[in-house]
Amino acid sequence: MISRRNLLAGGAVTAVGALTQRATPAQAPTQAVARLEPFHGPHQAGVATAPQAHAVFVAFDLLPGTGKEGLTRLLPLLTDDAARLTQGRAALADTEPELAANPAGLTVTFGFGPGLFAAAGVKSPVAQLPAFETDKLKKQWTGGDLLVQICADDPLTVSHALRMIVKDTRSFAEVRWTQRGFRGGAPGGTQRNLMGQLDGTVNPTDLDRAVWIGDGPLRGGTTLVLRRIRMELETWDAADRTAREFTIGRRLDTGAPLTGRAEHDEPDYQRLNALGFPVIAEYAHIRRTHVADPAQRILRRPYNYDDGLSAEGKPDAGLLFASYQADVERQFVPIQRRMAEGDLLNQWVTTVGSAVFAVPAGCAPGGWIGDSLLA
Amino acid sequence: MISRRNLLAGGAVTAVGALTQRATPAQAPTQAVARLEPFHGPHQAGVATAPQAHAVFVAFDLLPGTGKEGLTRLLPLLTDDAARLTQGRAALADTEPELAANPAGLTVTFGFGPGLFAAAGVKSPVAQLPAFETDKLKKQWTGGDLLVQICADDPLTVSHALRMIVKDTRSFAEVRWTQRGFRGGAPGGTQRNLMGQLDGTVNPTDLDRAVWIGDGPLRGGTTLVLRRIRMELETWDAADRTAREFTIGRRLDTGAPLTGRAEHDEPDYQRLNALGFPVIAEYAHIRRTHVADPAQRILRRPYNYDDGLSAEGKPDAGLLFASYQADVERQFVPIQRRMAEGDLLNQWVTTVGSAVFAVPAGCAPGGWIGDSLLA
Repeated sequence: MISRRNLLAGGAVTAVGALTQRATPAQAPTQAVARLEPFHGPHQAGVATAPQAHAVFVAFDLLPGTGKEGLTRLLPLLTDDAARLTQGRAALADTEPELAANPAGLTVTFGFGPGLFAAAGVKSPVAQLPAFETDKLKKQWTGGDLLVQICADDPLTVSHALRMIVKDTRSFAEVRWTQRGFRGGAPGGTQRNLMGQLDGTVNPTDLDRAVWIGDGPLRGGTTLVLRRIRMELETWDAADRTAREFTIGRRLDTGAPLTGRAEHDEPDYQRLNALGFPVIAEYAHIRRTHVADPAQRILRRPYNYDDGLSAEGKPDAGLLFASYQADVERQFVPIQRRMAEGDLLNQWVTTVGSAVFAVPAGCAPGGWIGDSLLA
Repeated sequence: MISRRNLLAGGAVTAVGALTQRATPAQAPTQAVARLEPFHGPHQAGVATAPQAHAVFVAFDLLPGTGKEGLTRLLPLLTDDAARLTQGRAALADTEPELAANPAGLTVTFGFGPGLFAAAGVKSPVAQLPAFETDKLKKQWTGGDLLVQICADDPLTVSHALRMIVKDTRSFAEVRWTQRGFRGGAPGGTQRNLMGQLDGTVNPTDLDRAVWIGDGPLRGGTTLVLRRIRMELETWDAADRTAREFTIGRRLDTGAPLTGRAEHDEPDYQRLNALGFPVIAEYAHIRRTHVADPAQRILRRPYNYDDGLSAEGKPDAGLLFASYQADVERQFVPIQRRMAEGDLLNQWVTTVGSAVFAVPAGCAPGGWIGDSLLA
């Protein structure tokens, strides 16, 4: 048996030669040619990419010894894994190259938490979120130094990429949490969440203004806010449709605002009903989260999670709310603050995990994610 | 803020009226017309059905008071849920009819464990498996009185159907475990498991002999063995390809037997190599599990599971091995016994959960699953 130690003998330089040999047995895939998402480019993939059906988010805590020097070894390695796997090629140390043969639209996206910048001795462009009164954060779903977001249309592809990333990270960091999710409903359309709502209707269209950062060290990058939102599905089920639509401000079936007929109709926040009350209530979710200026909107790319049932048969389920925005403070925080101040939906959702990451720009072949930030 | 109490004013009695109304707003799905699997018929769906991409298996323990009388109320209710949901219609008490609109090939299959027959005062046609030395069963993944297997191509459809079934079961039984899985690789082909193998190549073709029971109380039905097989992926990765292919007796890339060229080539168990040893080793997995008589083969319909990573970053992953056979004792047990006696693969797999269920025949409209067994 060949041990991983042997494979890596001699350090990073000879390892590359040894590992190249290992990747050879990967045969041409017998499956149909699968969708490829480009890896290299000015922006990382997995943000503007049409959301794939499955995702896992994994956060790592850097080991005490991992500083700038370690990161400049780890990140080129992970970048190489991502560049290969997304193109349907085995990772360098890939022991199951067959599982790499079906990329299924795979994207691998890296995010850096404040702790990573601290370890590297670099000023962090992101900070943790302020505390919100409605949050009930659990440590097991919160924070993290390094985030890897893995998305693909085949869940096996997701599992395999996760395994490769975790293996290559092990000498530098330990897993803090993994969160796995899936999209619901027809591909390409707005997804449905487990409450039955169309989720993510209003997204910005001008990503250069709303999502991509135009200058500074994160130029070409963005920020990711990941919130684990548990849904109280049992009590949500107990509310009737009128109450639920009143809570959201949209129809459950079509996703249309209560003042409109189709999902993408502009909500009319001024319209009053016969009794003189706003049709879209003061504390309806869409009013509380509404952002008038399209350039200030956040790009939501949510996934559902369903981790089975508790002993009482209650669903442990909800939403992995992932949003990308050029500026967390300016774009995300005000929305969350308005929700925390009052949103009918708060009765049925509780944020139990939260993390913020800087998402560096993409890289060209030969570069690595984070090189301009850390090198 | 508006309290939930206000929204729900009126209490439980009027809530029923509201619920009836509530089912009405389900609009025609806006998604593309989704694949429908027939529910009614001589056999239950979900056995011979081409495996859908996602599955959840949920096992219930009957509550102490649930006997034959309770079962004859519960099972018609669950049958009705299954008949509706599989056809893209909301369940009777469905509070999220939108989530029913995309059946995505949904099948809902019922299995009865020995405890259900005991509760009903009926002789059980199935027994628990004998103990196998290699098993390390955990109670949390083992046994169960009533099984519901839910499969669909959309994981949101699976989650929704599970929720409806659990809600309607709550007065009669409590959830013992849920196990969620997915298929890997191209649809229609043999799936790949997380070890990278093509998994489930040899299946019977004559289901009337191998799977469906021809007479007795389970006529038209079958039996299900569900085993939760944890994979030691870290040490599997440490073995080289030659060792892994020797262990299985097949190539990892194509799934071809070591004596053949293509996945479905018949393995040649007699062939010797230049040194005079069998090409497919004595303790290779495919030799230990080989069944010469096609009528005695078991129908495997496995799903991968990947429940994330332990704190050490080790995958909590493996296979939900589901097999259907007319006779557990005669078909499944000998295979498992040979594996337990000696199979190279045992180094890397451990069965941590196990359950056996009788799968009653299908039913016609107006009937219910299990009616001929229990009525």
